Amino acid sequence: MSAELTARTGELLALLRERRPRVHCITNSVVQELTANVLLAAGAIPSMTTSPEEIGHFAASADALLVNLGTLDGERRDAIDIALEVVRDDGIPWVLDPVLIDRSELRAELARSLAMKEPRVVRANAGEFSALMQGPADADGLDRFALDNITVAACTGAVDLVTSGAKRARIENGHAYMAQVTGIGCAETALIAAFVAVEDDEFVAAVAGLLVMGVAGEIAAQAVKGPGSFSPALIDAIAALDAAQIERHARFA
Amino acid sequence: MSAELTARTGELLALLRERRPRVHCITNSVVQELTANVLLAAGAIPSMTTSPEEIGHFAASADALLVNLGTLDGERRDAIDIALEVVRDDGIPWVLDPVLIDRSELRAELARSLAMKEPRVVRANAGEFSALMQGPADADGLDRFALDNITVAACTGAVDLVTSGAKRARIENGHAYMAQVTGIGCAETALIAAFVAVEDDEFVAAVAGLLVMGVAGEIAAQAVKGPGSFSPALIDAIAALDAAQIERHARFA
Amino acid sequence: MSAELTARTGELLALLRERRPRVHCITNSVVQELTANVLLAAGAIPSMTTSPEEIGHFAASADALLVNLGTLDGERRDAIDIALEVVRDDGIPWVLDPVLIDRSELRAELARSLAMKEPRVVRANAGEFSALMQGPADADGLDRFALDNITVAACTGAVDLVTSGAKRARIENGHAYMAQVTGIGCAETALIAAFVAVEDDEFVAAVAGLLVMGVAGEIAAQAVKGPGSFSPALIDAIAALDAAQIERHARFA
Repeated sequence: MSAELTARTGELLALLRERRPRVHCITNSVVQELTANVLLAAGAIPSMTTSPEEIGHFAASADALLVNLGTLDGERRDAIDIALEVVRDDGIPWVLDPVLIDRSELRAELARSLAMKEPRVVRANAGEFSALMQGPADADGLDRFALDNITVAACTGAVDLVTSGAKRARIENGHAYMAQVTGIGCAETALIAAFVAVEDDEFVAAVAGLLVMGVAGEIAAQAVKGPGSFSPALIDAIAALDAAQIERHARFA
Repeated sequence: MSAELTARTGELLALLRERRPRVHCITNSVVQELTANVLLAAGAIPSMTTSPEEIGHFAASADALLVNLGTLDGERRDAIDIALEVVRDDGIPWVLDPVLIDRSELRAELARSLAMKEPRVVRANAGEFSALMQGPADADGLDRFALDNITVAACTGAVDLVTSGAKRARIENGHAYMAQVTGIGCAETALIAAFVAVEDDEFVAAVAGLLVMGVAGEIAAQAVKGPGSFSPALIDAIAALDAAQIERHARFA
Repeated sequence: MSAELTARTGELLALLRERRPRVHCITNSVVQELTANVLLAAGAIPSMTTSPEEIGHFAASADALLVNLGTLDGERRDAIDIALEVVRDDGIPWVLDPVLIDRSELRAELARSLAMKEPRVVRANAGEFSALMQGPADADGLDRFALDNITVAACTGAVDLVTSGAKRARIENGHAYMAQVTGIGCAETALIAAFVAVEDDEFVAAVAGLLVMGVAGEIAAQAVKGPGSFSPALIDAIAALDAAQIERHARFA
């Protein structure tokens, strides 16, 4: 299966650049710039307003929606409600990033209710998945979570685990710098949102997003001296990435 | 005329660095950091609050005001009203950037009403100008828009068109990376705001802002590998830019 | 004393990387990303929400709190009140950065009332300290301010002055680029917050924060071409910094 997933990721990246899907991001204020630049580098067109008054227009004209719970103020909560109603009515796919819900029970509760609203993919780290699932974020737990919520769980860390309950993939790509720069996980979820805009199989889309980020991260890390110069190099690597590089670097466990 | 405009841009850049005007920016949360760093690199002093409670103080002590409609929440709308009243009373010049108004009719309506409040310059891309003017953003349309609103229209793209209705300039400088990084257009409008603080002729100020960004963008692009490393290099290029480089690179159509 | 402070800074940096304290930052929207990346590079774990609804949870689980008054909207004001109550009750140390209070009397008044709530350190430039103290920000004035408010004053500029009233240090490290990039001062205060999480003597913690930033800034400046490439290089330098480099570069006046 991993050879197919690798080949398909290369195709999807090309498709992304051809179709240029619009990805609307309700995301935290810390990572908006990096997220926008990662999406642009991959070929997607980002928009970022979190204003309840205009979120409806932006969501309705988007090809996918990202809901990230960082810096979750009242405005963002209202915007999420409005946007999710629009995308449900219009059949626009959306993905969920429950950032730091292990630090705030209020945020964790919201994440649990959102997980039941059929996000195509939920992307988080193990600590966040534990808080979301109120149990251990192991492979069995994630399988159950995916099946119960009719979604795909993408749990990122040293090795990324993607599961639909029926299908599982483990991706080994990535670099330690990715945990030393703020917003890489958030941008990764945004990439997955871009892929769900061009791929109906959300399991494949989640793998594609993580694989693109992981491979680009490895390539970027080769040429830099630390986490500061890693960020610009990562954007460069995503912008230059092609199917041959993905083929050469992809490592599934 | 283009030789004069080129020479004058070099002079204005030197003047900016000598006078260090304060540019207050009501701008979207995605681009605040890049905008601030572009202004600092050019010699201006940025401030960025969008809080209605304190915007009056900041606007009153500024030498120019930028109004950018991105991530337009209720706070920003209130801040715009207060700031425009202050700058009108105090004779402080201001410029308008109607970001993404082609994606939200609510935002487009606000932009149309703001365009009638005598911004010195309106800077946008063709899609945004079309939404603003409710018609094609061609040279004739832009001329009419400038004359009707007693402003200067600066329409950026592969070739930038600046028009006051009476005078027109077309600038060919720039690089494809500038469309692949979020916030370059926004920063460009901020640069124009810095130039209207030191140059009463807003047509000349608009040309200066676009020429500085276009020439710096070309210089920066020579030394980098992609859109990620382009951003830091662009700031470096603006900080190092001088009249001789502008002279050497400026290309008017 | 300066040899001791230098040696202790090296030890504290190692301690920071071992303990990985959580630093919650109520800071302005312009500098959130840079601040987070500086903290990560130093070894601390940043969080950034300014939402009144969730600030209590984040402050309670933090090891130190940063209160920065930039882009001071109603939400941030409410968040500051709630967070300060939590950290007072729980004995969590906090530091104050009264950004640009010389531009807004409203903000200056708030800063004065906050200074009386026992921040471990107040970090600002001379203009901001003058507004805070309503008098000249010279060594005697800063001593008095520190004694009156039972805090440490860290006044940054070409030479940084740190005083507890009883002890004074003057640090000469740093580079001109640090004034040409937005948010360096803000990130410096965040670093001080990280050090107060691992060092009870706030005078020593303030010196450590400024020394780490100043030395890293000098190292970063050697390898770059301008203020744009300086930012990533600064993060790299902080991430790679060790006691031997601090020893080699530290310069006290």
